[in-house]
Amino acid sequence: MNHRMILSLLGYVLLLIGGFLLLPCIVALIYGEEALWSLLAAVGVCVAVGLPLTLLKPKNKRTMHARDGFVMVSLSWIVISLVGALPFWFSRAIPSYLDAVFETVSGFTTTGASILTDVEAMPHCLLFWRSFTHWLGGMGVLVFMLAVVPMSGESIYLLRAESPGPSVSKMVPKMRTSAAILYGIYCAMTVLQILAYQLGNIFGWGEISFFDSVCLAFGSAGTGGFSVRTDGLAGYSVYVQSVTTVAMMMFGVNFSIYFFLICRKFRLIWKNSELKCYLGIILASIALITANLMLTGGYFGSLRETVHHVSFSVSSIITTTGFGTADFSLWPEFSKVILVTLMVIGACAGSTGGGIKVSRLLILFKYARAEVRHLLHPHAVEVMTVDGKRVSSDVIRGTSAFLIVYLFVAVLSITVVALDNFGAETTVTSVLATLNNIGPGVSIEIGPLGSYAHFSSLSKLVLSLDMLFGRLELFPMLLLFRPSTWRKH
Amino acid sequence: MNHRMILSLLGYVLLLIGGFLLLPCIVALIYGEEALWSLLAAVGVCVAVGLPLTLLKPKNKRTMHARDGFVMVSLSWIVISLVGALPFWFSRAIPSYLDAVFETVSGFTTTGASILTDVEAMPHCLLFWRSFTHWLGGMGVLVFMLAVVPMSGESIYLLRAESPGPSVSKMVPKMRTSAAILYGIYCAMTVLQILAYQLGNIFGWGEISFFDSVCLAFGSAGTGGFSVRTDGLAGYSVYVQSVTTVAMMMFGVNFSIYFFLICRKFRLIWKNSELKCYLGIILASIALITANLMLTGGYFGSLRETVHHVSFSVSSIITTTGFGTADFSLWPEFSKVILVTLMVIGACAGSTGGGIKVSRLLILFKYARAEVRHLLHPHAVEVMTVDGKRVSSDVIRGTSAFLIVYLFVAVLSITVVALDNFGAETTVTSVLATLNNIGPGVSIEIGPLGSYAHFSSLSKLVLSLDMLFGRLELFPMLLLFRPSTWRKH
Repeated sequence: MNHRMILSLLGYVLLLIGGFLLLPCIVALIYGEEALWSLLAAVGVCVAVGLPLTLLKPKNKRTMHARDGFVMVSLSWIVISLVGALPFWFSRAIPSYLDAVFETVSGFTTTGASILTDVEAMPHCLLFWRSFTHWLGGMGVLVFMLAVVPMSGESIYLLRAESPGPSVSKMVPKMRTSAAILYGIYCAMTVLQILAYQLGNIFGWGEISFFDSVCLAFGSAGTGGFSVRTDGLAGYSVYVQSVTTVAMMMFGVNFSIYFFLICRKFRLIWKNSELKCYLGIILASIALITANLMLTGGYFGSLRETVHHVSFSVSSIITTTGFGTADFSLWPEFSKVILVTLMVIGACAGSTGGGIKVSRLLILFKYARAEVRHLLHPHAVEVMTVDGKRVSSDVIRGTSAFLIVYLFVAVLSITVVALDNFGAETTVTSVLATLNNIGPGVSIEIGPLGSYAHFSSLSKLVLSLDMLFGRLELFPMLLLFRPSTWRKH
Repeated sequence: MNHRMILSLLGYVLLLIGGFLLLPCIVALIYGEEALWSLLAAVGVCVAVGLPLTLLKPKNKRTMHARDGFVMVSLSWIVISLVGALPFWFSRAIPSYLDAVFETVSGFTTTGASILTDVEAMPHCLLFWRSFTHWLGGMGVLVFMLAVVPMSGESIYLLRAESPGPSVSKMVPKMRTSAAILYGIYCAMTVLQILAYQLGNIFGWGEISFFDSVCLAFGSAGTGGFSVRTDGLAGYSVYVQSVTTVAMMMFGVNFSIYFFLICRKFRLIWKNSELKCYLGIILASIALITANLMLTGGYFGSLRETVHHVSFSVSSIITTTGFGTADFSLWPEFSKVILVTLMVIGACAGSTGGGIKVSRLLILFKYARAEVRHLLHPHAVEVMTVDGKRVSSDVIRGTSAFLIVYLFVAVLSITVVALDNFGAETTVTSVLATLNNIGPGVSIEIGPLGSYAHFSSLSKLVLSLDMLFGRLELFPMLLLFRPSTWRKH
């Protein structure tokens, strides 16, 4: 492995985070908060550790192998979580460092699982940083670095390890331009969401402070789920909630769709089967859960109110955001099973959402269908296509392997978390909610109004790793646990 | 499709079941039970429907395609369940026909999930028939037919559809001899188990009636799980329980191992990685659950007693038998998670047990490992081997497809059963316990002391289908739901 190159890149990542930490410092200055010093101390740590590392000269600049790329990405994410947690810990806003790391991993991985029980008690600057980690983690810290820092070497491996989905869609041949376009669309959409919130203030559809609207936009854009209030989004107006519903749904769409939109390639959008499937699943889930709640009775006053809260919850769960307006942990079993299924399905590939991804499921589904046909006609040759394009056997095999590793990680994590002896619902959905980067589970303890504070340190560690496994789509993290990765070659 | 051939084969299957129904008639005569008339009426139905069907002459005897074989096997299993349920219904021992079908499907598929709440109330002859369905279903009704009826055509498809595991291991080149050897080993082992029970009577280690020992042997041999008492095996002596523990474990082993034993091919046994893995999982699970129960405290009096009951439960669950001596639905979450994992893993391929099968998991595990390596070294060519033999890409693809279909069927079933609005534990483990042919789940309602009586008709139907999906390993049943199967070609 090219150790010097990895260390020097980690140095740049640290400096980058140090730079980003200056933003909450400005918030601290505006509100005159003492936590400023904790933030500055964290910036100091980033510079003190990062700067010497960047001075390491890699022996051979051009050789970055797949393994180096994957290991580099995994280590970066661990490092940014460790330093990103410092302000919470230094300021004693979160007294335990492990808890602070859990919260930060949850932030960067856009999970939104929180150990806080009183969100309002935290200073504005730290709430801002907490939501900002979502925004950064959503599109990817290294993708950002690719967009702004001119890098040599085969940086495709970095992009591949950090972008969600079974195959990387480069929008334009040049990697750096692709990364810049992605961040451009991302910024524009975030700004649009903040503006939409402000319209509510102007036209009197529903009050929301500028600070809250920025934080909620960060949380939706990254499909994160940290709110700035303990009761999530329950206290905001119907207008604010509806804007969030639409925004979450939009951030769960593959960003190439927006690129096609800009380039006026409408046929490519129309033909996109992942998009159709994603929207179909959302509509079907809303219909089924609404019917279930209305027939069971006693949940919401009217059909309109039911549809409103169900749409919000479905949009929040399938995009793996995890915001809540209603406590779905109290809903009937059928609705909860659908929500848990949506958790696992997740959003579209190439979006900021987590989960297995709709396109992976499409591939797996077509693959299984082809295999059944193969069973009946062993000599027929079949070609599998998605959107008219042939799916390479590498992608199919990678996707099957993904499913196997996914199940393996999930079962292992559930077994360890079970040692805490909570009920089955808490045990299983805590793992699913972190592994798929959602946040809340469907039991009362960890539901939209619950918190992860009560888990043991071991469980918090396992759940933190699950968040990283989920965000980086298993393989990069898996390599860290493979002894041969660390052997010299 | 060759409709006439399928119908004529179904006729033979009906006659066969009619013949088997004469055995419980003998039991009815011995105990002088009135249910004799119900049994005879069922025999009458079998003959009245079966005989005319056998007279249908297939147009072309030799052409049995893969599709015909799969459809034939699925239909046979549905037909034998429908007629096998008649004695329970005619005698009013189970007043609802749907319930009687559920109980019979549960019997033939060796699931052992029961809707009875008072087992002792049933006459001996029906209890015998109930346990006998386990024994028949365990090795397979069509495998039996292959062993005794000289059949033309490519009957490999029948054997393939009915035998558990990713690939059929023909022990000898001739199909009929293979089937006969399988049934020979099966009978011998069942007799051995009955003898072992009787030794307890002779030496005073523990009383058990001859009737009970025959029924329990049927239940263990088929890895079924129907007991003749409401409290399962809790009321029997430690000796009887221990004999059952060992017997269950042995029936969960691939029967080729016993064939190798007879042929003195000890090296093949020693090299068998599935067997090692199976025993390893059993030992590890016993150790982990025992430790969990001892550390939590308050479950059993002594370490010895704990190990005894844990070994029984682990053996019962991994072999998918489902007998119970202790109510594991009350155990701590960690132990329950391990049990649920064992449910899904299941026994060895080529045994009478259900579940995904250890060998399938081995293949999937090796496949995922190879894929991770492929990710790092895209140009290296890898050959996957199990027990030194190359695994064909057909088997790998079939196994991946199996996993995908398995998950799909499980999620769909859980969603439907959730409509009954039981807790998550009952909803999820009722599906896993039927799809993997185990019987009891890990919640109090459907645990070793519970019953499936309280589910709605829709859930009972779905769970019955799950049992058939599980026993026939998904694909044959899946074909029945494919519109193109019924189209003329």
